[in-house]
Amino acid sequence: MIVRPKTNWFRMLFAWEGSVQNTILAPLAIILGLSLLALWGHHRSDHFFLRLSPVPFSLIGVALAIFASFRNSACYERYWEGRKLWGQLLGASRCLARFAITVPGLPAAHPEVRRVVDLLAAFAHALRHQLRGTDPADTLARLLGTAEAAEVMRRAYRPHHVVALLQAHIEAWRRQGRLSDVLFAACLAQLDILTATAGGCERIRTTPVPYAYEVLLHRTTYFYCALLPFGLVESTGWATPIVAVFISYAFLALHTIAGELEDPFGQDANDLPLDALTVHIERSLAEATGAASLPPVPVPDEHYRLG
Amino acid sequence: MIVRPKTNWFRMLFAWEGSVQNTILAPLAIILGLSLLALWGHHRSDHFFLRLSPVPFSLIGVALAIFASFRNSACYERYWEGRKLWGQLLGASRCLARFAITVPGLPAAHPEVRRVVDLLAAFAHALRHQLRGTDPADTLARLLGTAEAAEVMRRAYRPHHVVALLQAHIEAWRRQGRLSDVLFAACLAQLDILTATAGGCERIRTTPVPYAYEVLLHRTTYFYCALLPFGLVESTGWATPIVAVFISYAFLALHTIAGELEDPFGQDANDLPLDALTVHIERSLAEATGAASLPPVPVPDEHYRLG
Amino acid sequence: MIVRPKTNWFRMLFAWEGSVQNTILAPLAIILGLSLLALWGHHRSDHFFLRLSPVPFSLIGVALAIFASFRNSACYERYWEGRKLWGQLLGASRCLARFAITVPGLPAAHPEVRRVVDLLAAFAHALRHQLRGTDPADTLARLLGTAEAAEVMRRAYRPHHVVALLQAHIEAWRRQGRLSDVLFAACLAQLDILTATAGGCERIRTTPVPYAYEVLLHRTTYFYCALLPFGLVESTGWATPIVAVFISYAFLALHTIAGELEDPFGQDANDLPLDALTVHIERSLAEATGAASLPPVPVPDEHYRLG
Amino acid sequence: MIVRPKTNWFRMLFAWEGSVQNTILAPLAIILGLSLLALWGHHRSDHFFLRLSPVPFSLIGVALAIFASFRNSACYERYWEGRKLWGQLLGASRCLARFAITVPGLPAAHPEVRRVVDLLAAFAHALRHQLRGTDPADTLARLLGTAEAAEVMRRAYRPHHVVALLQAHIEAWRRQGRLSDVLFAACLAQLDILTATAGGCERIRTTPVPYAYEVLLHRTTYFYCALLPFGLVESTGWATPIVAVFISYAFLALHTIAGELEDPFGQDANDLPLDALTVHIERSLAEATGAASLPPVPVPDEHYRLG
Amino acid sequence: MIVRPKTNWFRMLFAWEGSVQNTILAPLAIILGLSLLALWGHHRSDHFFLRLSPVPFSLIGVALAIFASFRNSACYERYWEGRKLWGQLLGASRCLARFAITVPGLPAAHPEVRRVVDLLAAFAHALRHQLRGTDPADTLARLLGTAEAAEVMRRAYRPHHVVALLQAHIEAWRRQGRLSDVLFAACLAQLDILTATAGGCERIRTTPVPYAYEVLLHRTTYFYCALLPFGLVESTGWATPIVAVFISYAFLALHTIAGELEDPFGQDANDLPLDALTVHIERSLAEATGAASLPPVPVPDEHYRLG
Repeated sequence: MIVRPKTNWFRMLFAWEGSVQNTILAPLAIILGLSLLALWGHHRSDHFFLRLSPVPFSLIGVALAIFASFRNSACYERYWEGRKLWGQLLGASRCLARFAITVPGLPAAHPEVRRVVDLLAAFAHALRHQLRGTDPADTLARLLGTAEAAEVMRRAYRPHHVVALLQAHIEAWRRQGRLSDVLFAACLAQLDILTATAGGCERIRTTPVPYAYEVLLHRTTYFYCALLPFGLVESTGWATPIVAVFISYAFLALHTIAGELEDPFGQDANDLPLDALTVHIERSLAEATGAASLPPVPVPDEHYRLG
Repeated sequence: MIVRPKTNWFRMLFAWEGSVQNTILAPLAIILGLSLLALWGHHRSDHFFLRLSPVPFSLIGVALAIFASFRNSACYERYWEGRKLWGQLLGASRCLARFAITVPGLPAAHPEVRRVVDLLAAFAHALRHQLRGTDPADTLARLLGTAEAAEVMRRAYRPHHVVALLQAHIEAWRRQGRLSDVLFAACLAQLDILTATAGGCERIRTTPVPYAYEVLLHRTTYFYCALLPFGLVESTGWATPIVAVFISYAFLALHTIAGELEDPFGQDANDLPLDALTVHIERSLAEATGAASLPPVPVPDEHYRLG
Repeated sequence: MIVRPKTNWFRMLFAWEGSVQNTILAPLAIILGLSLLALWGHHRSDHFFLRLSPVPFSLIGVALAIFASFRNSACYERYWEGRKLWGQLLGASRCLARFAITVPGLPAAHPEVRRVVDLLAAFAHALRHQLRGTDPADTLARLLGTAEAAEVMRRAYRPHHVVALLQAHIEAWRRQGRLSDVLFAACLAQLDILTATAGGCERIRTTPVPYAYEVLLHRTTYFYCALLPFGLVESTGWATPIVAVFISYAFLALHTIAGELEDPFGQDANDLPLDALTVHIERSLAEATGAASLPPVPVPDEHYRLG
Repeated sequence: MIVRPKTNWFRMLFAWEGSVQNTILAPLAIILGLSLLALWGHHRSDHFFLRLSPVPFSLIGVALAIFASFRNSACYERYWEGRKLWGQLLGASRCLARFAITVPGLPAAHPEVRRVVDLLAAFAHALRHQLRGTDPADTLARLLGTAEAAEVMRRAYRPHHVVALLQAHIEAWRRQGRLSDVLFAACLAQLDILTATAGGCERIRTTPVPYAYEVLLHRTTYFYCALLPFGLVESTGWATPIVAVFISYAFLALHTIAGELEDPFGQDANDLPLDALTVHIERSLAEATGAASLPPVPVPDEHYRLG
Repeated sequence: MIVRPKTNWFRMLFAWEGSVQNTILAPLAIILGLSLLALWGHHRSDHFFLRLSPVPFSLIGVALAIFASFRNSACYERYWEGRKLWGQLLGASRCLARFAITVPGLPAAHPEVRRVVDLLAAFAHALRHQLRGTDPADTLARLLGTAEAAEVMRRAYRPHHVVALLQAHIEAWRRQGRLSDVLFAACLAQLDILTATAGGCERIRTTPVPYAYEVLLHRTTYFYCALLPFGLVESTGWATPIVAVFISYAFLALHTIAGELEDPFGQDANDLPLDALTVHIERSLAEATGAASLPPVPVPDEHYRLG
């Protein structure tokens, strides 16, 4: 939700890349230690028993490439699908709001129109809190009043209850003759998009990449990195620690980023900024109903991140 | 259907990765034996006749990479498409339930509304049992009564018969004037999604990855791993058993996981938790109709797996 | 259309992989001969003029990997899209049958309903025969009677004529007031899916992968395999014939399987079982109309293949 | 639009692969010359200054593989999307023709129905000529008469003017009460598909793969091939010319084919046969209206190519 | 939006590839310097301490290939999705214009029809300016008059306000009885496509590829290129500067192009020509309403680029 300013190539070498560094610091330190051990052994004796040829490394490289590239794409697709779903949610909310403002023949500021917009915002908030496992009670109370918010809070599937409230509200317009069946059916299609969006997010959230993949790739990557110094020491000599840590850094960081993107709705540094996306939806809906003032634009932190 | 708690990098090295280990234990033992044989031969004589150069291994590595990466993606896509289809089923069920509750003008607890919800649950159960080749008689009897369940059981294409019952039920509302043709057509579109979902699952279930691929990749992988010790022994020396078993482990485990995901509706450790997904659908439908109590949330086993 | 029983890893090494072996037997024999020639030359003289270094093989390996993996995916996608189109056809047929049974208010056994189902089956058969270049006259006569079948046979685009007959039949219901325009339009959408399905199958059938790709990959693969023994003989010694034939087997088999999948509607061992799919559609439609007996389930041959 | 007969593996080695050979003949001759130069230098002196080690070739191979495989897929997807769009066009034309024949209640031979079919054919021709930059005047005059064809010719966006004429024609049926609004809306959806199809083709035609990719890959490929003989000569000896030309052939041909597919609507040997596709559409429409004779099936040239 | 004339293979080697060269000039100069340093060290002493073996380069090559190819595809897909969205926008604009001209029964030159076309053009311009962060005030004033343009300018989400104006205008036709509810719903579907298009563009614009990927790949690529001369010098000798700069050129240019495509709506040399696309939309709409003269075709610069 924010456009990061372009950096030149030199400054980007030292950019802050989120929480990845913290995760891989300990393993990298261990690999540094192993490199020094390999170097010490190599200098002490020509027959240092831990020296390995580089041959197995290029053979295992094939397997590692298949695994890592596959998991990487799969995780990024989950991230991007998550973002698309939230875009769809924004789109359907805008369309429903526009519909409620023009079609039933009520003024944009009418409480019945306002209620559609509040329920749409409540839907986005309920979904965000469900995906993050946080508590939507306060936000729902602000948008729906304490009584109705309590009613929603009693449910296991809160976003879906909000859609049900929306449908009941629009159905009332149909009963009052404000909407023909054809236009009601057009609305229904938008409500079904809300349901599909929430379902898609739940799917991504509750069905991770099969765990056997995760474990297998994790083991292969770490074992590969741990053996690396012993395979490099003969050909690389004193530069072994630098080179081994650099190669391990690349593999482990890639592995860690993919792990962060796998559940794009979490609160890691590289996850989707659900807080900002929800504010964005509220702002867009508020503007559509001609609100006097919009909620403030979310302000990123010093690393251009939003919550 | 369950969110696995995050583990740190060290503990994940020793995580349990499902039933994969059992499948590949015997081949790995054989490869260990071959490694010891290669080592013994290498130490006995410089001209050990079974020693191979590493050259062919990197050449065959290309073919193996193409095959394995292709099959891996194809199998994972089948798994993920299967999951999407069940998400679609959940979505269509929720939309139809919401429709039945609001539109025909009957109270949510009315038997005719209740019947829509029961038929939707019966559809999910019938599909699950068909995909797993298990017996749906008891579940259908609980949801539809013994007489109608027996009627469904007599069919070869049970989920489709349940959709036909649903359509007849909604068509009755149209004849009674409860639904206009426009709204009936909107319902029909949802029923057609149920049909498409079941058809998609059947397609995945009955059209495996072409068998020639499976056999060819199987042979190439196992032959590659069996020859590996003889190709490594000259360059890797005493570490041959460790390295050969590690590389084989990576290839064989990858191969086995893909094989499990190929039919995502089975009961392997990494397959889709159809039991839990069906309970999820039932819970969501029960909550929508305002049921006093929901079916209990499925409890995963100690490996965070659901049935 | 059939679920192959799972085999254990050992027996699968010797499984039958369709007609692939026949196609590549001659080239493999030639490569075996070339290996023996290379071995003979290598043993006769240290300066055997046909000996090659392994360097070019790893360089060309890159090009080969790009080509083969690309063509492989493209061909498999054609296969899988073909399967999806037939799934779509099954789905649309089921939806139209269900529609004809419930909506116009006629009993399921009424000849006018029966005719919809017969035309749907005739459509699937006409498409199958068109894709395989076989003669649909008998099947059409069974389903539509000799007079109408002859009429269909006179056409160049037979499946599309069947759709036109279906549309005329349903249009008659509209004229008789059995269907409102809204419900007729819903039917029309399903008929348009039939048209799109047949068009998609024709597209796959008549637009192969660009021929230049086929020829180029064919040449590269065969030339690579023919030179392989001369590149391996120095490093691999007496094992050259085994290793060269094994590597060639992997490349040529992969190449041949992709060639079979390219036109998934043919009658190769790995093609789609269109006969069985059509029986499946007929069975499903017959059950929907409450037929007393269904056509028999297709029985696979000893290799679990269906026609 | 034509099914090429299957060739056996041996004859396919010598098949004609379109115009690719002409394009790469000159570069291959230059590479042959460079190989001979390298061979001459290598034999003259052990310290031939132009000899390179094979190391850089395998390093640059990685970059080349990424580029070429990416561009290759992107170009093929453009080709296949182009083919899908023309399939969509055929489908929408068939559906609209079927609609015009059955629904407004006019006989299939009525001039008003005939006009729909003529406009649909004119649309396909106008699009084909626009994509190829050729002159549609004659074809349009044949289908629409000189006056209306001249009117279409005056437009910058001719296919879209034809759709506008179609819509005006069908709208007239609505005004005359031949079509209800619901059925008119169903027609409109098909017209919108025609618009989308033409737009998709324009998109592919006017937005090539970013030029920087083309140039960069072009340079990398040609530079790689030009240096190849000097990298191979030490290890490959007298076989250098054969091997260098063979590897270059594979890379340059792949590069050239992708370049041809990038604009699939041109008239290269591997482009889509738009002429034949348009005849196909005309034939299918003529048969649908019961025309006494169909336009003749396009006849391929001796290389199984259609225009 | 422009078809670049085909160049022959030789001239294309020297083609201008956009702004990529400027960006990578400084790093390439540094790498040239490092190559000369490596060469100097190598000639001075056989034990030059900065000499590296080529082994680590092929190992890190695997990681680099995964990263670069993944990011490359992801960025190109963003570019191509951006182009598709603008194609969709053009398509929906054409369909809505055609609708406004034929269906409400007003002459094509009527101010009320004209207003639909002006609002559609205003939408495209507003979206373009929003995506590029430029000021749409003048263009909006030209199309909508100063008063209404000022009203739009006061909004944070300008394109969406234009859609709201469009919907209000068409809704007025519905209230006047010019459009039935069915046809109004068909219009609404097109307006919803406009909303979805703008939302999709915003999504691409505001959600870059996760920054950790960018930083990690940037570091790996630059570090790899900086070490390259020291790894090549032993095997490549005096040719090290040429070869190191060539390989670095390929990697850095690829990296830079992908970075340009990541935000396809910017004003880099390889970005989408939004100015030309908008003119294209205006021209197409003007022609549809029978305007006497069309806006001029955008003229590309000497590098065949459009703004």
